[in-house]
This record gives sequence, structure tokens and C-alpha cells, in this order.
Amino acid sequence: MPLSPIQHADASPAVRAVYDDIKATRAVPDVNNFWKMIAHDPATLKRTWESLKEVMAPGALDPLVKEMIFVAVSATNGCSYCVRSHEAAARRAGMTDAMFGELMAVVGMANETNRLVFGYQVELDEALK
Amino acid sequence: MPLSPIQHADASPAVRAVYDDIKATRAVPDVNNFWKMIAHDPATLKRTWESLKEVMAPGALDPLVKEMIFVAVSATNGCSYCVRSHEAAARRAGMTDAMFGELMAVVGMANETNRLVFGYQVELDEALK
Amino acid sequence: MPLSPIQHADASPAVRAVYDDIKATRAVPDVNNFWKMIAHDPATLKRTWESLKEVMAPGALDPLVKEMIFVAVSATNGCSYCVRSHEAAARRAGMTDAMFGELMAVVGMANETNRLVFGYQVELDEALK
Amino acid sequence: MPLSPIQHADASPAVRAVYDDIKATRAVPDVNNFWKMIAHDPATLKRTWESLKEVMAPGALDPLVKEMIFVAVSATNGCSYCVRSHEAAARRAGMTDAMFGELMAVVGMANETNRLVFGYQVELDEALK
Amino acid sequence: MPLSPIQHADASPAVRAVYDDIKATRAVPDVNNFWKMIAHDPATLKRTWESLKEVMAPGALDPLVKEMIFVAVSATNGCSYCVRSHEAAARRAGMTDAMFGELMAVVGMANETNRLVFGYQVELDEALK
Amino acid sequence: MPLSPIQHADASPAVRAVYDDIKATRAVPDVNNFWKMIAHDPATLKRTWESLKEVMAPGALDPLVKEMIFVAVSATNGCSYCVRSHEAAARRAGMTDAMFGELMAVVGMANETNRLVFGYQVELDEALK
Repeated sequence: MPLSPIQHADASPAVRAVYDDIKATRAVPDVNNFWKMIAHDPATLKRTWESLKEVMAPGALDPLVKEMIFVAVSATNGCSYCVRSHEAAARRAGMTDAMFGELMAVVGMANETNRLVFGYQVELDEALK
Repeated sequence: MPLSPIQHADASPAVRAVYDDIKATRAVPDVNNFWKMIAHDPATLKRTWESLKEVMAPGALDPLVKEMIFVAVSATNGCSYCVRSHEAAARRAGMTDAMFGELMAVVGMANETNRLVFGYQVELDEALK
Repeated sequence: MPLSPIQHADASPAVRAVYDDIKATRAVPDVNNFWKMIAHDPATLKRTWESLKEVMAPGALDPLVKEMIFVAVSATNGCSYCVRSHEAAARRAGMTDAMFGELMAVVGMANETNRLVFGYQVELDEALK
Repeated sequence: MPLSPIQHADASPAVRAVYDDIKATRAVPDVNNFWKMIAHDPATLKRTWESLKEVMAPGALDPLVKEMIFVAVSATNGCSYCVRSHEAAARRAGMTDAMFGELMAVVGMANETNRLVFGYQVELDEALK
Repeated sequence: MPLSPIQHADASPAVRAVYDDIKATRAVPDVNNFWKMIAHDPATLKRTWESLKEVMAPGALDPLVKEMIFVAVSATNGCSYCVRSHEAAARRAGMTDAMFGELMAVVGMANETNRLVFGYQVELDEALK
Repeated sequence: MPLSPIQHADASPAVRAVYDDIKATRAVPDVNNFWKMIAHDPATLKRTWESLKEVMAPGALDPLVKEMIFVAVSATNGCSYCVRSHEAAARRAGMTDAMFGELMAVVGMANETNRLVFGYQVELDEALK
């Protein structure tokens, strides 16, 4: 009963146009299952792709840093698919094993200290107001 | 009834030693409330500080990137204190308004797409296995 | 070592009575694994079923809306089992593909803007107090 | 040191154009602090507003249901600002106290049963695959 | 516009009966704001109180352990109100500062290692299946 | 492309020393995949093991209570691996089926009431300040 990925051959012209833009932008032969699933709602497919393309483009932060931030959020939320796909993207952008290790160390510490703050009910310092 | 921050003057020698190391390492006149609260458990204070000092030190990733990752996790978890204190640290390490804006944009998109993956039950692509 | 589902034939009379009420209320031939697992704690089985039956019944909100809210929470929490079972219930209650698509779009946007609020530390407007 | 809301009078023409569209679309005299804060990143302001306008518009789901889903996600994530602002929007769209009560009841039950599923490690039923 | 706590004098007989049972069970002169807020939905008030009374009662686990588990979950979710009220309950049940410190240390470590598992995509050991 | 567990035979001396300490401390013939994965970052492996050994040791709270708190957090975060491994540890430390059932009941209720607090925007009682 769950939805199945919509393959390129079965896609509407509007969906196919987004797929083609993803493939051209990323120079990949096919799009990931993520896009093939949200294609069930063409408006969400188009909006999400356009937003992601804008947000992940080089800017004040380079793409490698952006992909690592994406992995940090995804690991915090426990999204296995998202960790895998953005870890792959980060590695393509130059992330080494050492960088991944430090990324995970920071993610772990942040999740730990976030809860120490919640549990000890730490109040904001005057200097931070 | 809740616990109060332990000030330097009221701290045990063991706690004071950690406070002094924080102050020396960061070149600050006093430690934040975070440390003054977890000081109620001196073992946690010591372990957390030593871990944080090790994890946030320059390595394969520079301190600015590490602080931005910390902010990303803290914003994902809704830890207001943690966002403020690590945003301040990131700004001291060189984060501009433009960088903060892109950081937040990535955090927002990652949290959105994480849920699209969960909701559409996206299965892992062969290429990502 | 993990627990296994308790089948009807192996259940105590108290557990069987709950199973029978679920089957009668929902007009299904068997109960889901969810119930067969929490049946290891008969008090939790009974309390959870009675609460769920009361909460999900038609009232000021119709069952379709309630099931979609359930899916929204489950997608936010990354509970795959819960998304699948309540998506199925929502579809039985009339949710179309278009409705599911909009549901996911809202869930995605809400998770994104929640983090923009956390990250930018937005203060409550006077008009909302 | 934290950022302050950007008021209409201090906004760039690009930001002002978004503010004006929000005010016109919602028939409100001023925009909320949320928009005034993310305006520090005009690209995020524009993209978020356009996405939200598209996602929250009437479609297969009516605006009341969409606002209630937004509240459900925000309560799950503990975003106080988001709960308040979208609860207000839902009430303007017709949500009664009774509807809010049932919404919260479903949100509570979903968060509870999500964790029972995680804790008991419930496996997917054949019928749900 | 937000809801206000319903005081005993303003409560319906059904709500008052729940308030009185809480006061008698806990030997307190008044109920907390939590109950006065969910009283806006009398069915949720009654169901939540009866569930909580059953769940938190002495059983295979003693009330102190149960209150500490409640604090652990609340700190993980960042629910400040819940941490405070259940920390108070745990202290009344005998939790010392040393026990609170160790509780928080475990909560912190669990939140950290949960994310290391998510980030490193650790697969289940044969022995744990 | 994802990382693979580092087996004892393939580990560096520094990693092997940690593995050996885990095996000796826990009296187990091999370490879990968790350690074999984070071993890709030897500093994280060493720091996490030393922290965990300190935090989970008997103290003001006994190991059984600590393992149950670990399970409570892991179920709240939806970390399947963590639930399974720490449920196993809790059972080895004496957790019965009845205790596990009550643990889950508390975890469920806490997650439910946390969201009622968030949704109803409950304000802190004077007595709790």
C-alpha cells in the first residue's frame, strides 16, 4: 500500500523537468529515491528542489560546510537516509574520515550539553542577553 | 528550590581548578552559568570540560566550523541557551551575519527534508548502500 | 532476546479481552503488532487502548483529521511504524494522495520554521501574549 | 549582541516588498517578529514566505486543518513561539476550544505511542508492508 | 488570547472532582498549573490524571525511580516545566543532589551516544538480534 | 561507501587498547559494533569509553537504574540500536519484564505530558520557581 518511487519514464512532464534539472545540476545519471517519492506531490518536489538548490549553493559558506551541517542535523534527528545521502555528498565535496570523525564528535557533545542545559535549567548569562 | 549557580568564591578546590582552566583557555574573566550549574556534580563538570576542550579544539575542522555545527544541533533541539552561547562563540571565531543566515537556511532545510523522508518512508538507494 | 508479539492464542484472558475489543471496534480480523507487543504489560495495553479509543473517536474533529495529525507527529518524531499504520488508517478514512501530499508539505514547513524560530531566537510579539 | 527585529522603516526595498506582500495577503497591519528576524537573510525571508504562502493556501486540505497540523508539529518540537502564532491562526480560521482540546489529545497520544513503538521495538506487520 | 488556568472556584463539578482527587492523592493544597490548563478539555484532564496515577504508583519500580525517568525524558525533550515539576517530585521522593547529578550525567551520555549511533549508522550486532 | 566496523585484528594499538579495556571491564569476548564504528575516530572512541565507564559505574544510583534511564532516553530519541543494547544491559543488571513494562509506561506518559505542556503553554507555578 505505501507509495512507490516514480521513475523518470512514468513521470509527468512537470516532474520530469525537475528530475532533469537535478540531473543536470548535479551531473548524475539518475535522481535519488527522495525525489522520486516526493514527486507524488509535484508542487512539493518543485519547491523543495528549488529551495535546496538555492540553499546549498556556494555562498558565504562553502558546499562542504553546508553538507556537514546537513549531516549534523540529520544525525541529531535520527534520519538514516538523510545521514547517508548527505554524508556521501559531503565526501564528494572533500570531507575526509578525520573531518567526519570531528563532525560526529561535535554533534555528540552538542546533543549531550543541550540536555545538561535542559536538565540543570541553566539561566542565560547577563553577557549573552 | 532549583539549584543556583556556584560562584568561584563558593566553589570547592576541584571545581575552582576547572573554572580556572576554562578562564585561562578561553581568556575570559568568568565562566558561564552552564559551568556554574553542572559544577553541582564536580565529576560531570570536569569530564564535560575536558571533553569539550578536546572536541572543539582546532583539528581537521577549524573552530568556526565546529561552533556552527554546535549551533545547528542546538537550533534543531530548541536549546535557547546553547544557541545563544555558541552563536556568540561562532561570531567571535569569525562568523558573519551572512554566514549565520546560510547556516540557519541549511538547518531549516535539513529539518524539513528529514521529515519528508520520514513521512514518505523513502527507502535507501542502491547506490547509497 | 527481544520480546516477541503475543498472539491471541497465547494471551491471558485479560489481554484477549482487549484484543477482542480492538477487533470488534475496528472490524479487523487481527490486531497489529503494536498491541501484541505492549501486551507484555497488560495494564499498558488496556490503558493505551482505552485512551486511544476515546481520543480517536469522532468528536469536534473527525477521524480523518485526527489520523492526519497522528501522521504529522509520527513523521516529526521519525517513527516509521507509526507513520505507516496511521497513514493506512488515514487512507481508510478517506485521505487521498493529494491530501497526503499537502499534509507532508505542512509537516515539512513546520519543522523548518520551528528551527528558524529556535535559531533566530524570535521573541513573542506583543499581540500574541 | 543577538539580532534585533528589522522594522519596516529600516528594511531594504527587497525586504519591504516581502513585508508588504505578507501584510496584503493576510490583511494585517504589521508582520510578526518571525519575519522581522529572518529578514536578516533576505533570501531566506523571501523563500520562506513564498513557500509558506503556497503550502498553507487552501487546497486538498483547508487552512484550518493545515494550521492545526502546524500546531501539532510545533507542540511536538516544543516551539513555544510557533504554537502561539499558529494556534492564533487556527483560531482565526475557526478552531474552537473543543477542537483545540482534541488536537492536543491526539498530539499527546501520538507522542506517547511513538515511544512505546520505539521502546518495544515493534516490527512492521505484513499487512502494512 | 491564550488560555488561562482554570481555578478550583471556576471549575465545573467534573473538573473539580479531578482536582479534589489529585489534592487528596498527593496531599497538596492546590493542583499545579498543568492540571488547570488541560482542564479546558475535561476528558483529557480525567484521562491524563487517571493514567498518571496508575503509571506513577509504586509497582515493580519505586516512585523515586519513576520520577527520575520522567525527568530524564523531560530533559531530553527540553520541557522546562516538566523538568522542574518532576525534579521537585523526585526530590520529595528522596532524590539527593548526588543522585540528580548522576541522572543528568546518564541523560547527557545517552543523548550523545544516540547521535553517534545515528551518525555512524551502526548496525545491530548479531548477539542483539 | 559507508564505514565498516573495525575488527580487533585490524585495529591500531591505541584502538585495540580500548577494545581490551571494554572486554575486561565488561567480561565480554568482543566489543559491540558501536565501538567498532566510532573507532574510526580513535579520540572519540577513547573519550566516549572513558566517559561511559565513569558515568555508568555504581555510585549514588545503581547500574540497573542507570541502564533504565539510558533506555528511557533512547526510546524517546527513537534510537533502535541504543534501546536494544541498553535493554540487554538492563536485563543483565536485573531488569524484569514487569520493570521494563513500567519503564515504558513512564516513558510514554512523560512524552505525552511533555507535549500537553508545550501545546497548552503551561506557565511555571510560583511554588516551582
